[in-house]
Amino acid sequence: MSNYSKISIPADARVELHDALHLTGAEVSVNTLPGGAQVPFVHSHKQNEEIYGIISGKGTITLDGDDIALNAGDWLRVAPEVKRQLSASPDSALSFICIQVKAGSLENFTMADAVV
Amino acid sequence: MSNYSKISIPADARVELHDALHLTGAEVSVNTLPGGAQVPFVHSHKQNEEIYGIISGKGTITLDGDDIALNAGDWLRVAPEVKRQLSASPDSALSFICIQVKAGSLENFTMADAVV
Repeated sequence: MSNYSKISIPADARVELHDALHLTGAEVSVNTLPGGAQVPFVHSHKQNEEIYGIISGKGTITLDGDDIALNAGDWLRVAPEVKRQLSASPDSALSFICIQVKAGSLENFTMADAVV
Repeated sequence: MSNYSKISIPADARVELHDALHLTGAEVSVNTLPGGAQVPFVHSHKQNEEIYGIISGKGTITLDGDDIALNAGDWLRVAPEVKRQLSASPDSALSFICIQVKAGSLENFTMADAVV
C-alpha cells in the first residue's frame, strides 16, 4: 500500500472510499439523494460515530424521531445508538458526506499529533 | 453530551468540528485557502491518517515532494508519516475538508457495524 492514494469522483456519484483509498481509520461515503428520495431504511450503529456534512441541496435527517432540516454547510455528529434516516427535499437533491469512525478512537489531533 | 449535535458553517469559513460537535473518533476541519495562498508549513503526523476531500476550486498538495493537482471531487488518503503541504492555485480559492482519524482504528463499518 502506498503512503498516499487519490481518486476523483464525478459530480452526483455515490462512492465509498474505504476500499478505494485503503482507509484504515474511517469509512467515508460521498452521496447524492435525488429530489424526493429517502434512504430506504432506519439504521443505527454498534460502535461507529457518524459525521454528516451537507455539501449542497436540502433535506431532512430524522434522529430518534426528531426531524432536523439540512442545508449546505450543516455538519452533524450522530452517536452510534441513534436511529437515523435521511431524505432529500421534494424539490431538491441532497449531496452529503458521511464519515464513519469508531466512537472514542481519536487520541490526539492537530498540534498534539502533528510533526512540523 | 447529547446523542447528536449540529452546526451550520457559513461559506468560506474555516471551522474545526471536534470541539464544536463533541466528536470522539475524528477531527474534521472545513477550510478555504484564498487564491495564491499556501498552508505556511510542511507537516506530518504521529499516529493520524488524514483524508482530504476537495469541495471546490483548484490547488496542489505536495506529498513527500510529489506535486498532485487538486480539483473538486478529488479525495485522498495520506498516511501519518507523509510530509504534506497544500496550496490554492494563483487564480482560484481551494475549499476542502480534512479528516483526521487514528490510523488502524476502524474495526467494522457499514453493514458489519449497522443495526437495521
